[in-house]
Amino acid sequence: MDMLFEITATLVAQLQKPTLAFLIGGMVLAAMGSKLEVPTPVYKFIVLVLLLKVGLGAGISVREADLIALAVPAIAAALVGVAIVLLGSRTLARTRGVSRMDGMATAGLFGAVSASTLAAGMVMLDAEGIAYEGFIGALYPFMDIAALVTAILLARMGAARAAVAIPAGGGVATVSMGGANGDGIVREILTDTLKSPAISALLLGLAIGLLGRPEQVYASFYEPLFRGLLSILMLIMGMEAWARLGEMRKVAHAYVFYGIAGPLAHGALGFGAGLAAHYLTGFSAGGVVLLAVMAASSSDISGPPTLRAALPEANPSAYVGTSTGIGTPVAILSIPLWIALADWAIGI
Amino acid sequence: MDMLFEITATLVAQLQKPTLAFLIGGMVLAAMGSKLEVPTPVYKFIVLVLLLKVGLGAGISVREADLIALAVPAIAAALVGVAIVLLGSRTLARTRGVSRMDGMATAGLFGAVSASTLAAGMVMLDAEGIAYEGFIGALYPFMDIAALVTAILLARMGAARAAVAIPAGGGVATVSMGGANGDGIVREILTDTLKSPAISALLLGLAIGLLGRPEQVYASFYEPLFRGLLSILMLIMGMEAWARLGEMRKVAHAYVFYGIAGPLAHGALGFGAGLAAHYLTGFSAGGVVLLAVMAASSSDISGPPTLRAALPEANPSAYVGTSTGIGTPVAILSIPLWIALADWAIGI
Amino acid sequence: MDMLFEITATLVAQLQKPTLAFLIGGMVLAAMGSKLEVPTPVYKFIVLVLLLKVGLGAGISVREADLIALAVPAIAAALVGVAIVLLGSRTLARTRGVSRMDGMATAGLFGAVSASTLAAGMVMLDAEGIAYEGFIGALYPFMDIAALVTAILLARMGAARAAVAIPAGGGVATVSMGGANGDGIVREILTDTLKSPAISALLLGLAIGLLGRPEQVYASFYEPLFRGLLSILMLIMGMEAWARLGEMRKVAHAYVFYGIAGPLAHGALGFGAGLAAHYLTGFSAGGVVLLAVMAASSSDISGPPTLRAALPEANPSAYVGTSTGIGTPVAILSIPLWIALADWAIGI
Repeated sequence: MDMLFEITATLVAQLQKPTLAFLIGGMVLAAMGSKLEVPTPVYKFIVLVLLLKVGLGAGISVREADLIALAVPAIAAALVGVAIVLLGSRTLARTRGVSRMDGMATAGLFGAVSASTLAAGMVMLDAEGIAYEGFIGALYPFMDIAALVTAILLARMGAARAAVAIPAGGGVATVSMGGANGDGIVREILTDTLKSPAISALLLGLAIGLLGRPEQVYASFYEPLFRGLLSILMLIMGMEAWARLGEMRKVAHAYVFYGIAGPLAHGALGFGAGLAAHYLTGFSAGGVVLLAVMAASSSDISGPPTLRAALPEANPSAYVGTSTGIGTPVAILSIPLWIALADWAIGI
Repeated sequence: MDMLFEITATLVAQLQKPTLAFLIGGMVLAAMGSKLEVPTPVYKFIVLVLLLKVGLGAGISVREADLIALAVPAIAAALVGVAIVLLGSRTLARTRGVSRMDGMATAGLFGAVSASTLAAGMVMLDAEGIAYEGFIGALYPFMDIAALVTAILLARMGAARAAVAIPAGGGVATVSMGGANGDGIVREILTDTLKSPAISALLLGLAIGLLGRPEQVYASFYEPLFRGLLSILMLIMGMEAWARLGEMRKVAHAYVFYGIAGPLAHGALGFGAGLAAHYLTGFSAGGVVLLAVMAASSSDISGPPTLRAALPEANPSAYVGTSTGIGTPVAILSIPLWIALADWAIGI
Repeated sequence: MDMLFEITATLVAQLQKPTLAFLIGGMVLAAMGSKLEVPTPVYKFIVLVLLLKVGLGAGISVREADLIALAVPAIAAALVGVAIVLLGSRTLARTRGVSRMDGMATAGLFGAVSASTLAAGMVMLDAEGIAYEGFIGALYPFMDIAALVTAILLARMGAARAAVAIPAGGGVATVSMGGANGDGIVREILTDTLKSPAISALLLGLAIGLLGRPEQVYASFYEPLFRGLLSILMLIMGMEAWARLGEMRKVAHAYVFYGIAGPLAHGALGFGAGLAAHYLTGFSAGGVVLLAVMAASSSDISGPPTLRAALPEANPSAYVGTSTGIGTPVAILSIPLWIALADWAIGI
């Protein structure tokens, strides 16, 4: 009874958080035909500030971490991020009726990390008195950026192959052309991805956070503006999502299934990778739990602006809806599962 | 002597406040032919953030108030807001030489509430040791939104009737057409008003404040940015006001009279409504004073952006000038009057 | 050894500061062909907020200072600012291969003041237990605005003379025309300069800071946003600087020489003026040191947005590169020199 009440309360609390509330608000406004609009230059500025903030934060936390102890879990985190996206590209993005672009964007978000879900995991471990490494926060960018770059790269490669395939005609020709020009296409797409405004801003922030000393401007400007500008971005994305919802209705069941099953499968992946790091380098049980929580989480903060800018063709109502609406509550509700699993496998 | 010095000091202090100082600064820049300009997308973003803030703040304070004790004073506050606008529409807006649009916008601002005047009233009551209900802050949106919606609705209905009247020719035809299509016009205008960017943003903020939990983003983003963005909005409005001052000079005497007499008449209305609530539900004497202060005050914060976006045809030099330049100082100077009146009518 | 280490550490710390890090980051992005861009309306908004902040801060500090004790050092500061720009206009701006516009903009920045260099000087004096006047902060705007206005005025006058000269043909005709219309041109340029968006915003802030009471909005909005918006402005300027670097390479040696010799010559000018004020009014030895530090410093905060808006033709890679890249580290490294000089000349 208490359990049921707690689950319901957690779900309602998720919906009441500004991120989701502004997203829903934007959808309601669009549904009611409101004439509210956010000018494009303002949208571009918001995305720039958000991505610089994510990059700066990641750079600062990597710089401050002990790099040697960080190496193994960081590689594990990056591999898990890539694996989640590859898994999504073989499952969701190949589902009949799901556009490859939308499927890859969704997989990218589910591979990326939610800072608030991670924080919820830390708070739960603290409450149970379970210790974990101090550098856990620095693992965030490894999984996050690995997943987003992989997803954007795969989505663009798919789009490029499709563009090549159409004039070529038959399926055999397509495959051989894809094989012949594969390296050139990958190089071009990687260059394009790095030059895209979204990845440029993210990497600039990362470099300045790593090599510079932007702590003061980060704390006085980027950090305080972050949640506020995010709320306005969510409003924009909600209005857009509603305007494009018609297309999504046909395929909603695949996204709903992915939104529920994904966090559990991804969390298990993260748990396995954490367990390997535990046996290799003595990574703590608390750290294993938090790696699972990161893997189970789907990005509701860093991911949407990156994908929105890098894959403008993808439908936000698909990826943001699935991630923020289904994936995040499921990920938060599954945290006790990873704690129980770590207690069983390692002992806490 | 002390009294005179205090009044002068209060007036000078009003003019030195950023709100009025930036308004005057904008007028001076425009008068000097400065090429300074604020780009339109930035203006739209500022208005969006300001209206979301006002809505969020109202929603949060309504949610936190005791709804049953709040009901009677809230209805009283809303009725007073409507009454002030109706009074203005029969007096100022019918004055020869005052454009109906400008008159209604001015009446709307005088019906709306100034948070800083209300705060001044609370500080004076605290200094005199007079108690009042804790939920007073939650009455603000009732009077504020009721007045603004009424003013916008009446102004738009007037504009629509005028548009219908011109092709119809004679006065009799106009009246009959207004009667026949009256309901349709009201419905259309109400729909248009709700869909307008200004009211959309205000209601969105209200809904999220009421149903969500935006306290953190409100405190870290919307609240701190509010006064700053308002200062830039005032600068824009000052520049615009000067550019349109030529039209106002012909009718300035009507606005000056309304700016002085309005706060006293409106305060008396609010005092009467508060007195009724006192006899009905035991509303405190301090509460009655603050309802009078709210009614006497004219909005210098929430009102201008709403009206600016909803009634772009109205002249800011008329409504902002009358409200911020004349109405607000008169309202603040009249606070001791309502305290003395409450002492005489109820006893403190 | 310690000395060498300290100098290297100071230089690296300069490069790691957000101002320079974002400037370099913007150059690297542009060099890599990134498609990142900041929309023009956002750029205009950033400049407006930065200039209002600089003006407001200056106005507030002038208002709070003791005006009589302030007068002599303030006049000295303004004269030093003008002298530095005149010196630059006779040297750097006349160097073969240096465009007059770029040379004047650079001289303007070297005449203007760096708040962070000034703060470094204050911290060093505090550490040595050397006293100085409390109103020193209020001298900043006098030197800063005097230098910027002089530089903009001279650059515009030069451009106007050049425009007149071209149709006129021969050198003799140019001189006589310049002489005949000189007063008209000066008046026109002064009017244009005052009406320019940059100077309008700066003077508006100054007036409101001086006559109004904007302390609250200054502390809650303009101050916290300042460094953050500056970081984005630096990013824009870095991208622009790279795009125009080709032109600068030919003349780089002149800028490098000015960037190294300038702060030492200007500091000596400031020291001399301070010494005169010391003998005239008893201006403290600490004050003399700080006047020298101010003169040696080159603006990395207030100057770039002012010049960027007032002299859009000037190349930021010249003036920002020389000032932030060379002038500021040299100025900081020369602070101990002025302390030693004051000890020798006055005794501390």
